[in-house]
Amino acid sequence: MNSSKPVRGRPRDPAVEKRILTAAMDTYARTGWAAFTMDAVAQCSGVGKSALYLRWSSKEKLLVDALEEHSAPVLAPDTGALETDVLALATELLRYFLDPVGWVAVRVAVDSAVQTAAFGHIRDRIVRMHNEAASDMVQRAVRRGEFPGEEQVQPFIQALYGAVLMHVLTLDPGGRDQARDNLEEHVAPLVDFVLSRIRPE
Amino acid sequence: MNSSKPVRGRPRDPAVEKRILTAAMDTYARTGWAAFTMDAVAQCSGVGKSALYLRWSSKEKLLVDALEEHSAPVLAPDTGALETDVLALATELLRYFLDPVGWVAVRVAVDSAVQTAAFGHIRDRIVRMHNEAASDMVQRAVRRGEFPGEEQVQPFIQALYGAVLMHVLTLDPGGRDQARDNLEEHVAPLVDFVLSRIRPE
Repeated sequence: MNSSKPVRGRPRDPAVEKRILTAAMDTYARTGWAAFTMDAVAQCSGVGKSALYLRWSSKEKLLVDALEEHSAPVLAPDTGALETDVLALATELLRYFLDPVGWVAVRVAVDSAVQTAAFGHIRDRIVRMHNEAASDMVQRAVRRGEFPGEEQVQPFIQALYGAVLMHVLTLDPGGRDQARDNLEEHVAPLVDFVLSRIRPE
Repeated sequence: MNSSKPVRGRPRDPAVEKRILTAAMDTYARTGWAAFTMDAVAQCSGVGKSALYLRWSSKEKLLVDALEEHSAPVLAPDTGALETDVLALATELLRYFLDPVGWVAVRVAVDSAVQTAAFGHIRDRIVRMHNEAASDMVQRAVRRGEFPGEEQVQPFIQALYGAVLMHVLTLDPGGRDQARDNLEEHVAPLVDFVLSRIRPE
């Protein structure tokens, strides 16, 4: 996109850009990559397709910008103790996976296994973002003497994230609604289980 | 489909049916639901679209039959001890998630969150199938006195399945190839983590 190119008609409107990026996110969350088209995003946003092409020369670029705009990291707040840190992170993670934005991260992981060219970079960034949040939490626990050995870090993170993801994947639509209103109740047994693997006896 | 309806041209060929079902599976694994069309399956199978419609009146029915044909359960063999049972199940599970058939199960879970009408039933069946295999394994362990409390069963299963799935989702294409040749090496740390504290020390 050449931003110095004069735009015919109305001047560029940041609200329109935002609307398109949100529509791109929603469309991709719903359809995945194979059915993600400029046409579908135009229809979902109510903005003409030519306005989309004025800003993004390809659907790859549009999706990358949409992910950039919307992929706020899942926060792992420092509560001062591993147990409460993990409960807070797992609660945020469940909220995230129940939201279209988090759903998109799962879609990216699934699509990237077959569409490596378009998705390798995006997948790597999402994985890195999550790993950083979780690693910070674990490093704080290591410093406080709450975490046993280095070799348990990756299994711990994969079991924690995986348990929450698997929990979401097996919910039916009613269960998803119920979980949204009872985040902590849904994650507490998973957190207990994962933490009891490393808690001193 | 009315199977008594006379078929014009060549008689129905089971090999063609099999080829279409395999193509349906591969197409869905690659594209997901939103881009899963009779056209795409026809192209992938090399069979004319009219031959598809002769057998299946809709893409929903075609996909259900394809999933039925290909969704062999992940076996949880009875090795006589929880530790070796879990290692065997996790190894099979990793093999499954690295294969298009297992990938399809993840796709179904993702698609079913937004396409509930078409997918609710298929999702429920896949979830039930996995839950039965894992529950049988845990019940054997309970009978042998190897498993602590009933309330740990679901968290244990979700952490085990989730850890393996999360492991697969974070692999890059090279990592996926490497994992295919080293299944046990990849799952061993996850199995160790999930089993620790359950295992008598």
